[in-house]
Amino acid sequence: MSDSVPLRPVASRGFCLVLSAPSGTGKTTVGELLTAGDSTIVRSVSMTTRTKRPNEEDGVDYHFVGTDEFKAKIRQGAFLEWAEVYDGVLYGTPREAVERVIRSGDVALLVIDVQGGRAVKAIFPEAVLVFLVPPSLDSLSTRLKRRGLETDEEIQKRLSKARTEMKYLPAYDYGVENDEGKQQSTVDAIRGIIAAERRRISRWEPQ
Amino acid sequence: MSDSVPLRPVASRGFCLVLSAPSGTGKTTVGELLTAGDSTIVRSVSMTTRTKRPNEEDGVDYHFVGTDEFKAKIRQGAFLEWAEVYDGVLYGTPREAVERVIRSGDVALLVIDVQGGRAVKAIFPEAVLVFLVPPSLDSLSTRLKRRGLETDEEIQKRLSKARTEMKYLPAYDYGVENDEGKQQSTVDAIRGIIAAERRRISRWEPQ
Repeated sequence: MSDSVPLRPVASRGFCLVLSAPSGTGKTTVGELLTAGDSTIVRSVSMTTRTKRPNEEDGVDYHFVGTDEFKAKIRQGAFLEWAEVYDGVLYGTPREAVERVIRSGDVALLVIDVQGGRAVKAIFPEAVLVFLVPPSLDSLSTRLKRRGLETDEEIQKRLSKARTEMKYLPAYDYGVENDEGKQQSTVDAIRGIIAAERRRISRWEPQ
Repeated sequence: MSDSVPLRPVASRGFCLVLSAPSGTGKTTVGELLTAGDSTIVRSVSMTTRTKRPNEEDGVDYHFVGTDEFKAKIRQGAFLEWAEVYDGVLYGTPREAVERVIRSGDVALLVIDVQGGRAVKAIFPEAVLVFLVPPSLDSLSTRLKRRGLETDEEIQKRLSKARTEMKYLPAYDYGVENDEGKQQSTVDAIRGIIAAERRRISRWEPQ
């Protein structure tokens, strides 16, 4: 070893960051804040068979495709994970784009349902799984009521779903509390986790 | 589960933070900066058989003991790790004090040689091992020469030792570069690693 050779490699490998949360915990907003102004965190654009909403852009918010095309991609192994969320609507994470981000040394951000984390970890054992946790079911209930988009019955259904979704917590690496109105501190905590994970010796490129 | 029950536990378990570095990389100073003003990071006081220096205080810098007492403690299993560093001088990390800090939910900081990390991880698999890395052997050589405490021959011996010590890197979890004069950014990086590790779901106390 020459004395001018650095003792550490210059770059660390990229990785997947999975961000999941019980419904209504605000993972979409946190995901948007995370990627804003940071070109080294690249959000994966999911593919879906649901109808595009007027405010959405194809290829930016989602890749909108038909059910036949989606099912063909499942058969081709083109998804890291996919799920039928409700009423036959399919959502999936295209594998190729994520692999491209990782190869470039950046962080591929996957904002996906709690069932997705385990599937991603099985394919990428070096993935980092972050679970956004509401402070309590009470606070989640308050948030949903204040949003005023749903009936009491729908809110009860969501809370019951949130309870079930919390059972996936042990499959995740890190838990970050997401208090309403304190999203910036949630984002800062996740950025801290990313900074630490970039220092992981197992991610260093061989010299 | 009542709705007023928080979805996450209130506290996370304490853990061991091992800080190691090749000789001359400045781990002692970094350890002092880390614990300064942060009562949740408690430095473990090592035990040694070497002579107390005038500026040192027994029980603060080290626990100074005789060789017979040290060897009795080895036989009692009182050390997490111990080593004969040179000329028969023994250093060890008393186990009980470290366990007390972990039980209280705090971080027990162990500033120890590169050989020690593996031993600690074997006893505490949840320990976090941080390796301080000099930017290059060149920079380490410059630092040692500037310090002016050693002859050229002694410096060559230290550099050769540093090369050997770098081989322990893969046993560690995180690598943090320690540039001369940039110790505060080294300390900030380690604090970030501690903050992330406290969010690890595997450390959460069962509800």
